[in-house]
Amino acid sequence: MAKEAKTLDDLFHDTLKDIYFAEKKILGALPKMAEAAQNADLKAAFEKHRGQTEEHVSRLEQVFEAIHEKPQGKECPAIMGIIDEGTEIIEDYEGSPALDAGLLASAQAVEHYEITRYGTLKCWAEELGMDSAVSLLDQTLEEEKDTDADLTELAESVVNQEAEAA
Amino acid sequence: MAKEAKTLDDLFHDTLKDIYFAEKKILGALPKMAEAAQNADLKAAFEKHRGQTEEHVSRLEQVFEAIHEKPQGKECPAIMGIIDEGTEIIEDYEGSPALDAGLLASAQAVEHYEITRYGTLKCWAEELGMDSAVSLLDQTLEEEKDTDADLTELAESVVNQEAEAA
Repeated sequence: MAKEAKTLDDLFHDTLKDIYFAEKKILGALPKMAEAAQNADLKAAFEKHRGQTEEHVSRLEQVFEAIHEKPQGKECPAIMGIIDEGTEIIEDYEGSPALDAGLLASAQAVEHYEITRYGTLKCWAEELGMDSAVSLLDQTLEEEKDTDADLTELAESVVNQEAEAA
Repeated sequence: MAKEAKTLDDLFHDTLKDIYFAEKKILGALPKMAEAAQNADLKAAFEKHRGQTEEHVSRLEQVFEAIHEKPQGKECPAIMGIIDEGTEIIEDYEGSPALDAGLLASAQAVEHYEITRYGTLKCWAEELGMDSAVSLLDQTLEEEKDTDADLTELAESVVNQEAEAA
């Protein structure tokens, strides 16, 4: 039997499951990153990001509802690899003045993965005429971009301070 | 014996090895993506990106030379995960009108990984006063951003055309 041709609807649904899995993994990783962070502003940024991530999970559940599907994750090797690299930094740079710079780099890799996935999902939702999904995905996309910009600013100041202290 | 404290120099070097490994993996993946692409513009975009990636590898080799280190890769689980997801799309969406949209999403995930890594490396090179590295990393960073913008534009037109044809 020939495989049934997959459509853009299927691709949207598969990618929604991918980012839903990713957001839940990020939710698990952020407390470890907050705990490892040495700089108080960085610790606070990770704690704030955790709250936002809970909101992003809830928005994804609303998107699943809008397409009449049950929220479900699909293993996402990309985010697992990105988070593994962050865990490696925590282990390898424990006690080092460069640890925070490494944590910031990991957090920005996470943000960029989210930015690309939400950007893609929003583009497809527009094409598929899913207006409520477009609005939900866009809210999260804008928040991820803001978080990335905040992390860039923090990286510049943290790396500066720690290089001076070293 | 206590571990020697790792510095920002070590972090720069480790991350340089990470992106060097990643660029070489991308170099291997792009011909498969070009072969799978149905749309002629998308095929051409992947072929152009392959040429640019060769240039990026060569610039990284110049950065290694500037810090008096031999070019060397370090396994990068993030890019392996991102590329695995692309391979899965090629297999799952073979013969589907949505294949190109999926390939574009994978290529943009690759670009965003490169953007975040080159942005971080450039920030650290500035802090470490490595002027020639800053300039080399910045050239590649700007090219990656341009490629991502081109892919976004292409995604909008390809997804449109294919949705109409479906």
